[in-house]
Amino acid sequence: MSSEKTKDARPVLALSGGVGGAKLALGLARVLSPGALTVVANTGDDFVHLGLHIAPDIDTLTYTLAGIQNRDTGWGRDDETWSFMAALGELGGETWFKLGDRDLAVHVERTRQLREGEPLSAITAGIARSLGIASRILPMTDDPVRTRVMTPDGPMDFQRYFVEAQCAPQVTGFHFAGAADAEPHPEILAALGDPELRAVIICPSNPYISIDPMLALPRLRAALAACAAPVIAISPIIGKQAVKGPTAKMMAELGHAVDAVTVAEHYGDLIDGFVVDTVDASAATRIAVPVMVRPILMRSMSDREQLAAAALEFADRLTAGRA
Amino acid sequence: MSSEKTKDARPVLALSGGVGGAKLALGLARVLSPGALTVVANTGDDFVHLGLHIAPDIDTLTYTLAGIQNRDTGWGRDDETWSFMAALGELGGETWFKLGDRDLAVHVERTRQLREGEPLSAITAGIARSLGIASRILPMTDDPVRTRVMTPDGPMDFQRYFVEAQCAPQVTGFHFAGAADAEPHPEILAALGDPELRAVIICPSNPYISIDPMLALPRLRAALAACAAPVIAISPIIGKQAVKGPTAKMMAELGHAVDAVTVAEHYGDLIDGFVVDTVDASAATRIAVPVMVRPILMRSMSDREQLAAAALEFADRLTAGRA
Repeated sequence: MSSEKTKDARPVLALSGGVGGAKLALGLARVLSPGALTVVANTGDDFVHLGLHIAPDIDTLTYTLAGIQNRDTGWGRDDETWSFMAALGELGGETWFKLGDRDLAVHVERTRQLREGEPLSAITAGIARSLGIASRILPMTDDPVRTRVMTPDGPMDFQRYFVEAQCAPQVTGFHFAGAADAEPHPEILAALGDPELRAVIICPSNPYISIDPMLALPRLRAALAACAAPVIAISPIIGKQAVKGPTAKMMAELGHAVDAVTVAEHYGDLIDGFVVDTVDASAATRIAVPVMVRPILMRSMSDREQLAAAALEFADRLTAGRA
Repeated sequence: MSSEKTKDARPVLALSGGVGGAKLALGLARVLSPGALTVVANTGDDFVHLGLHIAPDIDTLTYTLAGIQNRDTGWGRDDETWSFMAALGELGGETWFKLGDRDLAVHVERTRQLREGEPLSAITAGIARSLGIASRILPMTDDPVRTRVMTPDGPMDFQRYFVEAQCAPQVTGFHFAGAADAEPHPEILAALGDPELRAVIICPSNPYISIDPMLALPRLRAALAACAAPVIAISPIIGKQAVKGPTAKMMAELGHAVDAVTVAEHYGDLIDGFVVDTVDASAATRIAVPVMVRPILMRSMSDREQLAAAALEFADRLTAGRA
């Protein structure tokens, strides 16, 4: 399905967090015509560390779409060295958040350009161009939005919760500081309003910390709700487990059933179709929107491409059904 | 001479630029009692690059006194890797000024602390402490002073001249922007006024670009002129050549004879003694202050220690002669 002649040039918009979402984004990029894909990246995870602006989900998407992601760690770059962290440790600097030497080039260059007044979206586009990425990666907003994790001991900055505390604290909710006033990137709103838009794909990312920061932008949420193209979400839960990360743990702590149905209910009216794994076939009857059942675990590149193609065909069928 | 029992605890102040000066500073540190040495570092070479505050002479002194300087390059750290620069080049970033991965830890940590309002001197002291340095390294001032090289085509920022243009442009003079209003670090003034001070050693650094930025601070120059302890300078010129760097080229372009006498005349009344190499013994009669003639090229650690001890003994003799 990656032969040139079958690739579709109609625009597709994907919403994605980090690792799991980036895998599907790569599949989408490979089955679509170059440039057809725009990926909206969560920036609620962004933070300033060591004076550097770190944007974990943008970077995971960038490295994954460039084919240079670190397959061992799940974050950062391949062919990485760690001299900076070792030297920083000698100086008594903060080493709980690991920054590889190659990875650091992105953070230093991004921080420099931000200080010169460049918007995050333009910087992200420049980095993607340098790395030969044909798809567009758009931060959900150029305004600062910061995810805080609510716990019984008070709110925590996201990376302190996620990396330093390794998601151990109990979660009681989330707050997306700045979201109410943040302006979605105008190209996102333009894409959602484009009559040519083929589909919106909500990647199998954590709904609470990867997708909700985007949905917390009032104008983005409204534009998604009003979008004429079908909105398809892929479950990040298979059976009772998250493929990666704390999604299942958070669901349980928030008092929800740990299953794909909870994710579909979470997105509610915003989605037009939902993709679950074959092990969750029986859940389909409890989901309010049309469901596609198929293997959704992405181990190989072929898995990524096949899931991407299936989600797009699902969207096309829903569009045809409406006509 | 580095046996503990013979080490002198009386305070010594050294003024130093980068590589050549740092070699003698290391010799001084080794022949003196731990903590007896304070080295004043030139900060006219400092600049902001990639958003990071780079302090080349402070770092060369720090790495040299910690025994971790890069012996191959003459700047930066040993055991260095270059992944950051390679990745920055991929992104189209500026790569004319080389920053190693380990070295970068110092720049990132320093920049972070400066942004939080810490003075450069406190940050420098913290880094030196982390690296186990017993001597004190003091920036000449916590205020910004920036060396500009005057050329027939106009002024150039120092690092653009020194690194990017590799000292090729003709020099017509120097300007130390900010020097007139910069406050010398108070510990420098205190040291120069300390009746216990044994000697001031002007290291064999470039007089125009390493030592003159310090002398351009009016209160530092006045305190040096009023200092009761002998001020000894070591020639950075041997025969008609600089041991390292553009000193000889600058002398010629400024219309001076390229020899040790020019350096002694440059310092004029500020110095009480001058150390020249044995090849320059005949120049001694043309120098207005007492001259010590001895090998001054520092190849081995023993060379560094012996030159340091000789300069201190020279100072002691001048003190004894005054008494």
